Amino acid sequence: MRVTIDPPYLRLLRLLRNEGAISRAELADRLQLPRPRLLAEVERLVAAGYLVEAGMAASRGGRRSTLVELHPRLRFAAVDLGASSIDVEVTNGRLEPVANYTEEADIRSGPKVILHRVNELLAKARVEGAYDRLDAIGIGVPGPVSFRDGVPVSPPIMPGWDRFGVRELLTREHGCPAVVDNDVNIMAVGEQHGGVAHSVQDFLFVKIGTGIGCGIYLNDGVYRGTDGCAGDIGHIQVDPHGPMCSCGNVGCLEALFSGTALARDAMVAARAGSPALADRLAARGVLTARDVAEGATEGDVACIKLIREGGHRLGSVLASLVSFANPSMIVIGGGLAQLGHILLAEIRSAVYRRSLPLATGNLPIVLSELGSRAGVTGAAVLASDVAFEQAS
Amino acid sequence: MRVTIDPPYLRLLRLLRNEGAISRAELADRLQLPRPRLLAEVERLVAAGYLVEAGMAASRGGRRSTLVELHPRLRFAAVDLGASSIDVEVTNGRLEPVANYTEEADIRSGPKVILHRVNELLAKARVEGAYDRLDAIGIGVPGPVSFRDGVPVSPPIMPGWDRFGVRELLTREHGCPAVVDNDVNIMAVGEQHGGVAHSVQDFLFVKIGTGIGCGIYLNDGVYRGTDGCAGDIGHIQVDPHGPMCSCGNVGCLEALFSGTALARDAMVAARAGSPALADRLAARGVLTARDVAEGATEGDVACIKLIREGGHRLGSVLASLVSFANPSMIVIGGGLAQLGHILLAEIRSAVYRRSLPLATGNLPIVLSELGSRAGVTGAAVLASDVAFEQAS
Repeated sequence: MRVTIDPPYLRLLRLLRNEGAISRAELADRLQLPRPRLLAEVERLVAAGYLVEAGMAASRGGRRSTLVELHPRLRFAAVDLGASSIDVEVTNGRLEPVANYTEEADIRSGPKVILHRVNELLAKARVEGAYDRLDAIGIGVPGPVSFRDGVPVSPPIMPGWDRFGVRELLTREHGCPAVVDNDVNIMAVGEQHGGVAHSVQDFLFVKIGTGIGCGIYLNDGVYRGTDGCAGDIGHIQVDPHGPMCSCGNVGCLEALFSGTALARDAMVAARAGSPALADRLAARGVLTARDVAEGATEGDVACIKLIREGGHRLGSVLASLVSFANPSMIVIGGGLAQLGHILLAEIRSAVYRRSLPLATGNLPIVLSELGSRAGVTGAAVLASDVAFEQAS
Repeated sequence: MRVTIDPPYLRLLRLLRNEGAISRAELADRLQLPRPRLLAEVERLVAAGYLVEAGMAASRGGRRSTLVELHPRLRFAAVDLGASSIDVEVTNGRLEPVANYTEEADIRSGPKVILHRVNELLAKARVEGAYDRLDAIGIGVPGPVSFRDGVPVSPPIMPGWDRFGVRELLTREHGCPAVVDNDVNIMAVGEQHGGVAHSVQDFLFVKIGTGIGCGIYLNDGVYRGTDGCAGDIGHIQVDPHGPMCSCGNVGCLEALFSGTALARDAMVAARAGSPALADRLAARGVLTARDVAEGATEGDVACIKLIREGGHRLGSVLASLVSFANPSMIVIGGGLAQLGHILLAEIRSAVYRRSLPLATGNLPIVLSELGSRAGVTGAAVLASDVAFEQAS
């Protein structure tokens, strides 16, 4: 069997990030390091500015041991770009937010406008005292990314971003390492770090928002595939006679069920007489997925039907992926997770009916716990990982 | 980033298995071990009966170094159970066959009959001098397996095998460790060890035989999923209005395209007037996938159409899996790989048209090189791995 071992300094830094101050004695036990080796690592990381000593631990019977924690000066920037939003968070070493900003922005404005705004928000955070300098930046974008190159690659809903040097721009501007990933991957990482998948090592995070994507978390890390585009399930064909998709093919999953598709179908349903949707359309002249969610809560039949049909479509695709990948959990997140339990029931029903009994005997299908914070949380985790790797 | 490190003795034994005799000096270099550490490992493994010294290596300039190789007495048994066949091979430490037997057998005869026959063939090999004792046995079965427990789990085409203690029976009978896996997983391992996927670390092995299954090879090993049933793609639904499948659902991939489905469709085509198929049916009273393959080679239109339709179905499923998993190669194996280049062209066309350009820009879709030997090759690899792990 394979044994996966990270170098001790990485395990040490991650442990302090996830759990806070720990005594030297306990660190030696937890990391299974000989005490002299542990002390040497700690000394090196203190000198390099990653750690500080933090007083004495409670006695464990013998001599009291010194507590060690991450340097309070450490700062990571986490950025989550959505189709229509920018989320920026600055965190300390333990990934606790010290500043955050959320605003609307159209990703189609292009990388220069959007990243300029990100830099303005980070500059604001600096002026407001959130940091002196950043140790690393993590950023998620709503499209396929070459993780190795730090650039988006042919992202369907991000005109102007193809192969744009996102990592290079941020690294140059802030003088620290940066890591660029797909928005769904960072949400999966976030949910594993601080959400419902905390104790799970193999799971799928399915984001239903403007589009649909899937973060694949395997063996304690994001699985990105050969070219970094694993998890692109929004363009799996579910109906060869279905509607045209933005990608140029027909009948893709996200052409049938996504924020965009649901808004389109809601317009049709409003005109066909759904009271909840017709009222909302008359009041505001436009409909979104949120209107469908609210209509369903009020018991509007057309809204419930739309959610059920969408859940069934998505569930059928997930059933295939469960047969293929046999994960131990599926987490549903993204804006449309607000469609809630009607959606969840339909997805569960499709997956449990269609997949191999062995694969679904013990397969929780649950809503994201972190919600809209999953993205920045995961971006902060990736930023800290890349910063910690510099400590080698 | 994660660093995967196997213990030195495992890397040493695998290297000698894959490459044959190597000098101590070169081993220390290749394994990046300090020379005293390497010499101690070699000495320990010689004493334990895994290694022998094999003369002097050619000089590399300084003192000549002693060659080391696997003990010539090492023997592994590799068993590949198909729906209608038993393949047994006994190999030496380098996985070269020293005896092999192939015969027809119906897996539905149940585990006692089939494994008794396996034991008879192994006894025959012993009597004929192929081995004194076995160091490990690897066996593949045509159904889902709990790899951890060494038992088949709810295998659709293997009545009587559910939860039968295959590993326990073989271990008891032969007094050596045994490893049980799905037939498709062992084929993937075989193809990686000695076939077309030799230099590849992430690929899918798709077996088209009586049924359809997929071996998922990720990060240098088989990915088995949470319950060990990853890769069960034969029961992905491709047509909600399709024919009933043996699993009880409708429209599964293998109900539409597999050896069984092709034989069924060939009967229909023969009665509808396909000359190639009608002649063969008249001559033998029965049709198989092989008849369709031969008919297609002769240019029979109905046969070509059947293969094209099947290839298109399979290609559509593979397109979804490519979008999801972004592998670096797809290998097509199993009995129906004999359908050859018409099938391959259709699969390629469906995958390249439907998947994300980034994922297919450099994605070879190729036929298995090892053919019917992929299974026993992989079973021998797994047997050697489990034997080597005992050397800790």
